[in-house]
Amino acid sequence: MARRTGRRPGNPDTREAILAAARAAFAERGFDAASIRAIATAAGVDPALVHHYFGTKEELFRTAMAMPIDPAQLLPGVLAGGPEGVGGRLVRTFLGVWDSPAGTPAVALLRSAVSNEWMARLVREFLVTQVLRRVLDHLDIDPVELPLRGSLVASQLVGLAMMRYVIRLEPVASADPETLVAAIGPTVQRYLTGDLD
Amino acid sequence: MARRTGRRPGNPDTREAILAAARAAFAERGFDAASIRAIATAAGVDPALVHHYFGTKEELFRTAMAMPIDPAQLLPGVLAGGPEGVGGRLVRTFLGVWDSPAGTPAVALLRSAVSNEWMARLVREFLVTQVLRRVLDHLDIDPVELPLRGSLVASQLVGLAMMRYVIRLEPVASADPETLVAAIGPTVQRYLTGDLD
Repeated sequence: MARRTGRRPGNPDTREAILAAARAAFAERGFDAASIRAIATAAGVDPALVHHYFGTKEELFRTAMAMPIDPAQLLPGVLAGGPEGVGGRLVRTFLGVWDSPAGTPAVALLRSAVSNEWMARLVREFLVTQVLRRVLDHLDIDPVELPLRGSLVASQLVGLAMMRYVIRLEPVASADPETLVAAIGPTVQRYLTGDLD
Repeated sequence: MARRTGRRPGNPDTREAILAAARAAFAERGFDAASIRAIATAAGVDPALVHHYFGTKEELFRTAMAMPIDPAQLLPGVLAGGPEGVGGRLVRTFLGVWDSPAGTPAVALLRSAVSNEWMARLVREFLVTQVLRRVLDHLDIDPVELPLRGSLVASQLVGLAMMRYVIRLEPVASADPETLVAAIGPTVQRYLTGDLD
C-alpha cells in the first residue's frame, strides 16, 4: 500500500461498502453514536482506511448522503456578522447554493428524503449536528430555545426549496433572489432572534 | 340507466378511466383549460356521466388528486374574520387538518408531488386555483401582489408539513399546535398583509 499522502479514490467496491455501512450507521444510531470504528467493521475494512478515503466523520457523513454543501465552509461567513441581518444573509447564502450547480444534487437529496425514511433520518441528523450546532457556536441563542428556533428556520428554508425547485410555484420559482431575501429574511431573523410567543 | 338522484359510485373501470383522463388533463392543460367535455371524450364517456359520478369540476379535481381537504369548506371560516389574525387562524386550521386522519393522505400527496412531476403540477394548480383565488375573494389584497404573497405562504406551510410529518425534525414534529401557531402565525400574517420589501 502506498503512503498516505492525502485522500485517494480507492477501490470502488471498498468505497461503496464503506459508504453503505456509513449510511446505515448514521441513520440507525445517529451521527454522534455512529463510530468510524463500527462503520469500518461493518464494511470489513480497517478504520484507518475509512479516514484515508473519506477524511473526518463529518466528511464521511456528507459523502454518504451525497450532500453537495459543507456547512462548515458556508455558515461561518453567514454567522460571523452577528445577529443583525443574519436572517437575510442566511436566505441569500441558501439561494446562492441551491441556484448554483450544487442545487441539482441538493434537490435530489430533498426528493430522496421525502420518499425514503432512512434518508429523512440522515437529513435530520445533518440539520441538527452539522447546521444547528454551528449556529449555536456563533450566535448567542439560549441553547434551550435553539431546537425550536432551528427547526422553524429549517421549515421555512425547506419550504422555500420545495416551492422554488420542486413544486415550482410562481413567482417564487423564478423570483430574483433579492426579492426572496427581502421577503423571507425577516422571517428567518425572527425565528433565530425574535420573540416567538 | 337509473334517474340521477345524487352522485353514485358507478362502474369502477369507468370511474378510474375518468379519473386518469382528469389527472392527465389537469396536469397538461391546467385546471381552467381542462374541460369536463374533453375529459369525458378522453375517457370515452358522456360528459353528463362525469358530472353524475364526480359533481363539479372542483370536486373532480380533488378526487383525481386524492386531495383529502376541500378549501371551499375550510377557507371561508379562516378568512371571514378579516385580515387581523388571519395568519394564526390559517396555521391553526392547517395543523388541524394535517394532525387529523385527513393528514395521512395529505402527507402521501406531498410525497407524490415531490417524486412525480405530474403530481407537482396538480398541486401547483390546486394551490393557485383552489386556494389562492379564495384568499383573494375574501381578503383585500392587491391582485398584483397575491401570487407572491400566496406562494410565500405556501412555502412556509409546505415547509412546516415537511418538518412536522416527513422529516420529523424535533421539536416541530411533536410541538403543541398552539406553540406553532404563535411562532408561525406572524410569518403567514406578514406574507399575506405586511410589507415584503
